[in-house]
Amino acid sequence: MTVTDEYLENNAAYASTFQGPLPLPPAKGVAVVACMDARLNVYGALGLAEGEAHVIRNAGGVVTADEIRSLAISQRLLGTREIILIHHTDCGMLTFTDDDFKASIQEETGIKPEWSAEAFSDLETDVRQSIARIVASPFVPHKDSIRGFVFDVATGKLNEVLPR
Amino acid sequence: MTVTDEYLENNAAYASTFQGPLPLPPAKGVAVVACMDARLNVYGALGLAEGEAHVIRNAGGVVTADEIRSLAISQRLLGTREIILIHHTDCGMLTFTDDDFKASIQEETGIKPEWSAEAFSDLETDVRQSIARIVASPFVPHKDSIRGFVFDVATGKLNEVLPR
Repeated sequence: MTVTDEYLENNAAYASTFQGPLPLPPAKGVAVVACMDARLNVYGALGLAEGEAHVIRNAGGVVTADEIRSLAISQRLLGTREIILIHHTDCGMLTFTDDDFKASIQEETGIKPEWSAEAFSDLETDVRQSIARIVASPFVPHKDSIRGFVFDVATGKLNEVLPR
Repeated sequence: MTVTDEYLENNAAYASTFQGPLPLPPAKGVAVVACMDARLNVYGALGLAEGEAHVIRNAGGVVTADEIRSLAISQRLLGTREIILIHHTDCGMLTFTDDDFKASIQEETGIKPEWSAEAFSDLETDVRQSIARIVASPFVPHKDSIRGFVFDVATGKLNEVLPR
């Protein structure tokens, strides 16, 4: 039995008490952009209920073209207005460099990825970088409430990253 | 008071009973790729606990270069081996076309996005497309357990998309 099979058993229990469907547009008008890290349960950490907010996640919680695509769809088609960015302490992205990661892939596969790995060396600097990329994008229309945080994996607390 | 402020109050309650830190590598060795939809609570729907699985999400739950980047980091640096893809019923991505969405942005901003909007017209076909993109990637090494599902927003159930 795979872990996927275990999760499907969990899903049967979840569905047995599920109340749906809710409306498509997020009820709270929020989009969250967070790291994929296993210890960052965005629902628990923010107290999100089903139907409230879009949740966008990737390695690092960084903003690349795909996050701009998702935020553009979120705001333009589904009415969200606030953006919450979340990085976290002890992040894997702090443990390597783009060059080394790409070189190791090239060595193993013969092909160097065409994308940046988006590694970073400072959490707060990268949160500000992610905010700056959203602010600079012509495709994300609503920028009045973009706030960035570092989630502490030891304490469960969100600490705000303030503008320099 | 913004919704972000409300969520920060929720976070204080979450942190008050939080037990951490857990180890960085996902304990269950799983990476989930899911749509950002507000009604798809991946933690509830799969019974995920903190520390178990990477969670990657975007508009549609599609696989673009950024999801390949995240999966490459997940498998190569943090040891995950199984991939679970989740699309869902009543998805916003079924309600527009790439061309129309990009034309509307161009009309408003004067700039046509350089990215595809990744809209789709059939859920199961797009789940298979996402699986095919992972299978085709030289950068994701472990492909023995890649399974795709459609989450039903009315019932809370995951229905598996089988290969054609």
